[in-house]
Amino acid sequence: MKATVVVRPKEGILDPQGEAVEGSLRKLGFDVSRVRVGRVVDIELSAENNDEARGQIERMCTELLANPLIESVEVSLDGS
Amino acid sequence: MKATVVVRPKEGILDPQGEAVEGSLRKLGFDVSRVRVGRVVDIELSAENNDEARGQIERMCTELLANPLIESVEVSLDGS
Repeated sequence: MKATVVVRPKEGILDPQGEAVEGSLRKLGFDVSRVRVGRVVDIELSAENNDEARGQIERMCTELLANPLIESVEVSLDGS
Repeated sequence: MKATVVVRPKEGILDPQGEAVEGSLRKLGFDVSRVRVGRVVDIELSAENNDEARGQIERMCTELLANPLIESVEVSLDGS
Protein backbone atom coordinates (compact mmCIF):
# COMPACT_ATOMS: atom_id res chain seq x y z
CA MET A 1 0.00 0.00 0.00
CA LYS A 2 1.20 3.51 -0.75
CA ALA A 3 0.92 6.35 1.73
CA THR A 4 1.73 10.01 1.39
CA VAL A 5 2.53 11.98 4.51
CA VAL A 6 2.64 15.76 4.27
CA VAL A 7 4.36 17.48 7.18
CA ARG A 8 3.95 21.23 7.50
CA PRO A 9 5.07 23.78 10.07
CA LYS A 10 2.08 24.60 12.27
CA GLU A 11 0.30 27.94 11.97
CA GLY A 12 2.20 30.53 13.99
CA ILE A 13 5.42 28.54 14.09
CA LEU A 14 8.44 30.30 12.61
CA ASP A 15 9.42 28.84 9.22
CA PRO A 16 12.83 30.19 8.17
CA GLN A 17 12.90 28.10 5.00
CA GLY A 18 9.53 29.51 3.94
CA GLU A 19 10.72 33.03 4.69
CA ALA A 20 13.84 32.49 2.60
CA VAL A 21 11.79 31.19 -0.35
CA GLU A 22 9.34 34.08 0.02
CA GLY A 23 12.18 36.60 0.01
CA SER A 24 13.74 35.04 -3.07
CA LEU A 25 10.44 34.90 -4.96
CA ARG A 26 9.83 38.58 -4.17
CA LYS A 27 13.30 39.48 -5.41
CA LEU A 28 12.46 37.64 -8.63
CA GLY A 29 9.43 39.90 -8.96
CA PHE A 30 6.63 37.63 -7.78
CA ASP A 31 3.87 39.11 -5.63
CA VAL A 32 3.68 36.40 -2.98
CA SER A 33 3.01 36.24 0.74
CA ARG A 34 2.81 33.59 3.42
CA VAL A 35 5.12 31.06 1.85
CA ARG A 36 5.53 27.92 3.98
CA VAL A 37 7.76 24.98 3.26
CA GLY A 38 7.09 21.47 4.49
CA ARG A 39 8.03 17.90 3.62
CA VAL A 40 6.24 15.20 1.71
CA VAL A 41 7.13 11.58 2.45
CA ASP A 42 5.92 8.84 0.11
CA ILE A 43 6.01 5.40 1.71
CA GLU A 44 5.27 1.94 0.39
CA LEU A 45 4.20 -0.17 3.37
CA SER A 46 2.75 -3.59 4.15
CA ALA A 47 -0.66 -3.43 5.77
CA GLU A 48 -3.77 -5.62 5.64
CA ASN A 49 -6.15 -2.71 5.36
CA ASN A 50 -6.43 1.07 5.56
CA ASP A 51 -6.98 1.14 9.33
CA GLU A 52 -3.81 -0.83 9.97
CA ALA A 53 -1.92 1.38 7.53
CA ARG A 54 -3.14 4.54 9.24
CA GLY A 55 -2.13 3.13 12.62
CA GLN A 56 1.35 2.36 11.34
CA ILE A 57 1.74 5.78 9.74
CA GLU A 58 0.62 7.44 12.96
CA ARG A 59 3.34 5.60 14.87
CA MET A 60 5.93 6.45 12.21
CA CYS A 61 5.03 10.12 12.60
CA THR A 62 5.31 9.99 16.37
CA GLU A 63 8.58 8.07 16.31
CA LEU A 64 10.37 9.69 13.39
CA LEU A 65 8.60 11.70 10.72
CA ALA A 66 7.21 14.73 12.50
CA ASN A 67 7.51 16.84 15.60
CA PRO A 68 3.93 17.24 16.86
CA LEU A 69 4.86 20.35 18.86
CA ILE A 70 5.64 22.38 15.79
CA GLU A 71 4.40 20.38 12.81
CA SER A 72 1.05 19.21 11.52
CA VAL A 73 0.61 16.01 9.54
CA GLU A 74 -1.75 15.06 6.73
CA VAL A 75 -1.93 11.41 5.64
CA SER A 76 -3.45 10.05 2.45
CA LEU A 77 -3.57 6.39 1.44
CA ASP A 78 -3.55 5.00 -2.04
CA GLY A 79 -4.41 1.31 -1.75
CA SER A 80 -2.67 -0.73 -4.42
CA MET B 1 -5.14 32.72 -4.10
CA LYS B 2 -3.46 29.80 -2.40
CA ALA B 3 -1.29 27.34 -4.27
CA THR B 4 0.40 24.17 -3.12
CA VAL B 5 3.45 22.97 -4.99
CA VAL B 6 4.69 19.45 -4.30
CA VAL B 7 8.23 18.78 -5.49
CA ARG B 8 9.40 15.17 -5.57
CA PRO B 9 12.59 13.47 -6.72
CA LYS B 10 11.88 11.90 -10.11
CA GLU B 11 11.54 8.16 -10.50
CA GLY B 12 15.00 6.63 -10.76
CA ILE B 13 16.78 9.62 -9.26
CA LEU B 14 18.81 8.88 -6.14
CA ASP B 15 17.10 10.18 -2.98
CA PRO B 16 19.52 9.99 -0.03
CA GLN B 17 17.02 11.60 2.35
CA GLY B 18 14.41 9.00 1.45
CA GLU B 19 16.94 6.21 1.90
CA ALA B 20 17.88 7.55 5.33
CA VAL B 21 14.24 7.73 6.42
CA GLU B 22 13.60 4.23 5.04
CA GLY B 23 16.59 2.85 6.96
CA SER B 24 15.47 4.51 10.18
CA LEU B 25 11.89 3.27 9.82
CA ARG B 26 13.14 -0.27 9.24
CA LYS B 27 15.34 -0.05 12.34
CA LEU B 28 12.25 1.01 14.26
CA GLY B 29 10.55 -2.18 13.08
CA PHE B 30 8.38 -0.89 10.26
CA ASP B 31 8.06 -2.99 7.11
CA VAL B 32 8.48 -0.23 4.54
CA SER B 33 10.03 0.10 1.11
CA ARG B 34 10.51 2.81 -1.51
CA VAL B 35 10.46 5.80 0.81
CA ARG B 36 10.91 9.08 -1.04
CA VAL B 37 11.14 12.53 0.49
CA GLY B 38 10.13 15.71 -1.29
CA ARG B 39 9.09 19.25 -0.45
CA VAL B 40 5.74 20.93 -0.23
CA VAL B 41 5.58 24.69 -0.73
CA ASP B 42 2.39 26.57 0.18
CA ILE B 43 2.19 29.97 -1.47
CA GLU B 44 -0.30 32.81 -1.19
CA LEU B 45 -0.14 34.73 -4.47
CA SER B 46 -1.97 37.51 -6.29
CA ALA B 47 -3.54 36.34 -9.55
CA GLU B 48 -6.69 37.30 -11.44
CA ASN B 49 -7.61 33.73 -12.26
CA ASN B 50 -6.40 30.12 -12.15
CA ASP B 51 -4.65 30.31 -15.52
CA GLU B 52 -2.60 33.32 -14.47
CA ALA B 53 -1.81 31.64 -11.15
CA ARG B 54 -0.64 28.47 -12.89
CA GLY B 55 1.54 30.51 -15.23
CA GLN B 56 3.13 32.30 -12.29
CA ILE B 57 3.70 29.06 -10.38
CA GLU B 58 5.27 27.49 -13.45
CA ARG B 59 7.74 30.37 -13.67
CA MET B 60 8.47 30.16 -9.93
CA CYS B 61 9.27 26.48 -10.36
CA THR B 62 11.60 27.12 -13.27
CA GLU B 63 13.33 30.04 -11.58
CA LEU B 64 13.56 28.82 -8.00
CA LEU B 65 11.40 26.03 -6.62
CA ALA B 66 12.43 22.92 -8.52
CA ASN B 67 15.16 21.41 -10.62
CA PRO B 68 13.36 19.95 -13.65
CA LEU B 69 16.25 17.59 -14.40
CA ILE B 70 15.78 15.62 -11.22
CA GLU B 71 12.46 16.72 -9.72
CA SER B 72 8.82 16.50 -10.72
CA VAL B 73 6.27 19.10 -9.72
CA GLU B 74 2.57 18.87 -8.88
CA VAL B 75 0.57 22.08 -8.50
CA SER B 76 -2.83 22.47 -6.91
CA LEU B 77 -4.77 25.71 -6.58
CA ASP B 78 -7.22 26.62 -3.88
CA GLY B 79 -8.98 29.81 -4.99
CA SER B 80 -9.89 31.99 -2.01
